[in-house]
Amino acid sequence: MTRILGIDPGLNITGYGLIEVEGAQASVLEAGVIRIPAKKPIEERLSTLFFGLQEVFKEFEPEAVALEEVHTQYERPIVAVMMGHARGVICLAAALNQSKVFSYAPTHIKSALTGNGRASKEQIRRMVCVQLKLTTEPEPLDVSDALATALCHMRRAGSSIQAQRCPPILTTNY
Amino acid sequence: MTRILGIDPGLNITGYGLIEVEGAQASVLEAGVIRIPAKKPIEERLSTLFFGLQEVFKEFEPEAVALEEVHTQYERPIVAVMMGHARGVICLAAALNQSKVFSYAPTHIKSALTGNGRASKEQIRRMVCVQLKLTTEPEPLDVSDALATALCHMRRAGSSIQAQRCPPILTTNY
Repeated sequence: MTRILGIDPGLNITGYGLIEVEGAQASVLEAGVIRIPAKKPIEERLSTLFFGLQEVFKEFEPEAVALEEVHTQYERPIVAVMMGHARGVICLAAALNQSKVFSYAPTHIKSALTGNGRASKEQIRRMVCVQLKLTTEPEPLDVSDALATALCHMRRAGSSIQAQRCPPILTTNY
Repeated sequence: MTRILGIDPGLNITGYGLIEVEGAQASVLEAGVIRIPAKKPIEERLSTLFFGLQEVFKEFEPEAVALEEVHTQYERPIVAVMMGHARGVICLAAALNQSKVFSYAPTHIKSALTGNGRASKEQIRRMVCVQLKLTTEPEPLDVSDALATALCHMRRAGSSIQAQRCPPILTTNY
């Protein structure tokens, strides 16, 4: 059995979804959001995120963390940079809890779930419900996005293609 | 007396410089770099950075941390995003050690030190040596950049203008 924690990072809301995998079967152990008080200084917001994540890591001890790759195609680059702050804290929390971090392109996650790399968040949520046999739809969409990322990693890790630990963007030297 | 920790964030080398301020006088307590092994997974690199910072925070207990504002004018936006990862971990380390984080635009730091917002790193280093009465030039330049940021905060915090805790970019909602 393997536990995978999918995370949808944000500085206002970070969604997370923890699945347990046995063979080709996956079930949800825990899912939710960490809400981060807006307008607080950045260090306090990151600290709220960190302690929220620590609780999940300590209780469930996931082997792997699955995240969306950073995409820098945001309308405002500063949004991507701020996302980087949250992502840095998530990666650190993973390291402190002996979890490995895996990244997937957004189109890859969508395609893994629905067969369509441009699927909407609602379509993703529907497929998350089907694949995890959920009777109620997760709310908000940050939760289903997080679960989708975990499911994507499950498929990738279970396939013959080696799961990608260090996508090029994460080995950038500067 | 106040202790200010200036940091020049990077994912390969993070420079830091800790100054102690009494009235208009400042002296260096400690300065150096945290070298981060390249090509390791991102979470391990951030963990090296975090533990390096923790040592400095625990030993010297700075009241304030001074950082350059994130500038998104890098040639490749991914560099700014990766810098965001390092910056997120720095802000978190500050919060865990009850230090407040202050950000300054690069031009503001240069101008505060030399009177010229476009000064070179070498010019900055020379002024750092003068102002801190250093007999040898700090190496590498990441260290003098970090000390310059700390000196900039000292001036700003000591002036009648309230030091800026939350520059607009850090309150972005998304």
